[in-house]
Amino acid sequence: MKAEIVTIGDELLIGQTVDTNSAFMGSELSAIGFNVIQITSISDKREMILRTLGEKLGKADVVLITGGLGPTSDDITKQTLCEFFETKLVMNAEVLAIIEKMMAKRNYPVNENNRRQAEVPESCKVIPNTAGTAPGMWFEKEGTIFISMPGVPHEMKHIMNEHVIPELKKRFTSQHIIHKNIMTYGTFEAKLAEILTDFEAGLPDNIKLAYLPSAGVIKLRLTGSGSNREEVAKSIQYQVDKLYQIIPGLIFSENEETLEMVVGRLLVKNGKTLCCAESCTGGEISHLITSVPGSSGYFMGSVVSYSNESKTSILDVPKETIIRYGAVSRETVEKMAEGARKRFKTDFAIATSGIAGPDGGTPEKPVGTVWISISSDKKTISEKFTYGNDRVINIRRFSYAALNLLRQQIIS
Amino acid sequence: MKAEIVTIGDELLIGQTVDTNSAFMGSELSAIGFNVIQITSISDKREMILRTLGEKLGKADVVLITGGLGPTSDDITKQTLCEFFETKLVMNAEVLAIIEKMMAKRNYPVNENNRRQAEVPESCKVIPNTAGTAPGMWFEKEGTIFISMPGVPHEMKHIMNEHVIPELKKRFTSQHIIHKNIMTYGTFEAKLAEILTDFEAGLPDNIKLAYLPSAGVIKLRLTGSGSNREEVAKSIQYQVDKLYQIIPGLIFSENEETLEMVVGRLLVKNGKTLCCAESCTGGEISHLITSVPGSSGYFMGSVVSYSNESKTSILDVPKETIIRYGAVSRETVEKMAEGARKRFKTDFAIATSGIAGPDGGTPEKPVGTVWISISSDKKTISEKFTYGNDRVINIRRFSYAALNLLRQQIIS
Repeated sequence: MKAEIVTIGDELLIGQTVDTNSAFMGSELSAIGFNVIQITSISDKREMILRTLGEKLGKADVVLITGGLGPTSDDITKQTLCEFFETKLVMNAEVLAIIEKMMAKRNYPVNENNRRQAEVPESCKVIPNTAGTAPGMWFEKEGTIFISMPGVPHEMKHIMNEHVIPELKKRFTSQHIIHKNIMTYGTFEAKLAEILTDFEAGLPDNIKLAYLPSAGVIKLRLTGSGSNREEVAKSIQYQVDKLYQIIPGLIFSENEETLEMVVGRLLVKNGKTLCCAESCTGGEISHLITSVPGSSGYFMGSVVSYSNESKTSILDVPKETIIRYGAVSRETVEKMAEGARKRFKTDFAIATSGIAGPDGGTPEKPVGTVWISISSDKKTISEKFTYGNDRVINIRRFSYAALNLLRQQIIS
Repeated sequence: MKAEIVTIGDELLIGQTVDTNSAFMGSELSAIGFNVIQITSISDKREMILRTLGEKLGKADVVLITGGLGPTSDDITKQTLCEFFETKLVMNAEVLAIIEKMMAKRNYPVNENNRRQAEVPESCKVIPNTAGTAPGMWFEKEGTIFISMPGVPHEMKHIMNEHVIPELKKRFTSQHIIHKNIMTYGTFEAKLAEILTDFEAGLPDNIKLAYLPSAGVIKLRLTGSGSNREEVAKSIQYQVDKLYQIIPGLIFSENEETLEMVVGRLLVKNGKTLCCAESCTGGEISHLITSVPGSSGYFMGSVVSYSNESKTSILDVPKETIIRYGAVSRETVEKMAEGARKRFKTDFAIATSGIAGPDGGTPEKPVGTVWISISSDKKTISEKFTYGNDRVINIRRFSYAALNLLRQQIIS
């Protein structure tokens, strides 16, 4: 089962856009047992597209293609696919209906460019794209399946998850492949790999372990394969149980949830509410929490107290505390958490105060320093963390550290 | 001047690592006039490496290669390069000295793995890597230059900036390529393409236009090429001026800035301050604003008023307004903006109230509806927008709409 990935777009070659689509597609294809042979990025040029697709023809089982399906004249993938598959563009009524509905909702008239997006190669099977205007297209030629999708990441992901992966699974997998994603937080990759050396060495041949780190969260992906589904599931579960014995404090989910989803689930389960007082995280924690559907049930709101005055006037942090200990201190951050909890009348409050960078660091409190506090009706705790120099990465890391601290307080 | 990029590593194909190196190399190569023909990612397999390099031989002027130079047994690029260039590994004293020095600094003994890293193919020109242990290697064969670098991004960047780019510049200097990125907001891609049909048709042969849309922001990229740098620059500027005449209201930057950067720049320039009252955007606007270094100079803070009670208790929105008009209404959002401006004592305030979804929609106020208000000492304005069904995308679109509305108010 060989797969290839082809991403089309000048913006990829001149480095204006980082190709994140390929990693997503590679991961999804691997997950259902495909061997991804090559990722090829080429420009929006007819000859390059024809040559590249020609090279894969009859060699790969599946070729996933993204990009070049927009409504503008630099998007030439569709016409070139017609040439490659010796077919012509025809108007597709269903796609047109989706586009018309989308435009109507936004109160825009359907123009010639939109209408062109509803044209599809006659010989392809159309894959609906309810997340955007350009549909996916499924072709087969000389034993190779070619699937063309839009390059907009969320549209591509939607088409992959809803249609491409389920369909490929049906067509190709006699083998049963089961993934289990164990979400961990609290250490770094090299350290976790060291802790899990023996565990990894003891894995049976049909189970693989991968480390997928992102801003402090490390996803451990166990992939098992075999002809008997139940046996694979049992074998994976045995390894998961082992992980819980080795790193009980680090695992926060075995269902690929984010920290903000887990925190939300725990708050709902315990009938508790939450608010935040964010200084250095600038709204990112609130944003993460409210990205979860249903969060209005437990999240009451936040104060982003970027100025010291707002820490005093809205969160009731005594001026003297800030003057005496500084804004980035245990004393201030605990007062912020307590003030927010009173303001929003919640069971829990998160507060953060730190130095995201690039400026504002001192020898005692370098860039990357953050104080985080969790206040509840039982107690107020706080902890200091130190990260790196990159502002955006620091903000994300501070936020995850805060969510994990809250998680620990809820379950403690 | 044709260039190709080859990145080597299983982690790229299974999607464990996003290939950010290629975008960096592509951008650097384009900047000095290279036409990047293809980016190819392949696994750490001898046959794949040999085949891929063979395909580029005598066709590209330059092939940049990253990855597979680490000290572990799955890193086989160096041996395979020896095979491809028909040479053998020899110990390089200078590289060994760098490695020994680096290990001494970290208080590690030099082991067999480290020593192996000091071995290089006899026929290559060694490129020093003072940022890591694996050196870069420069080969030439049949008119093609092959440059192999480590896959660790900061090591590769170091070698690129210090050695590869200056050297390539010296060797190849004929064509000049200039990119100009015009950032627009306020319409969608198909509509913009319609407006720019004549403009695009009138572009000279040496200037290309590309559309790069993302959550409501559309980047227009003009790429010009020619043998005379000044003429290309002049020719591009002429087209930029034309764009300003055709779509004056849509352009918010010609320097590839984000909306939050532009808003920050305008606030600084005008000596004004800002705060937010966010309901449906849940902290995302504050997060975007505070992602910009230096934002603490003009951003005082926000209230994320997720609960109606906090709209009343912290932002002083009259209870009756919410009861009579609903939380998602012109009346409520304007009171939120005015309340926030008073609370934080700022010149401007942004307020949002809407339905991000997936639940909470009604026939009159469907999911995707948002009211946005901007309040200043001169006036309070508000506008309603309607977007789609995806919660996370709605939050992002609401936030950009708010930032753009603020931008218009600052410059009006």
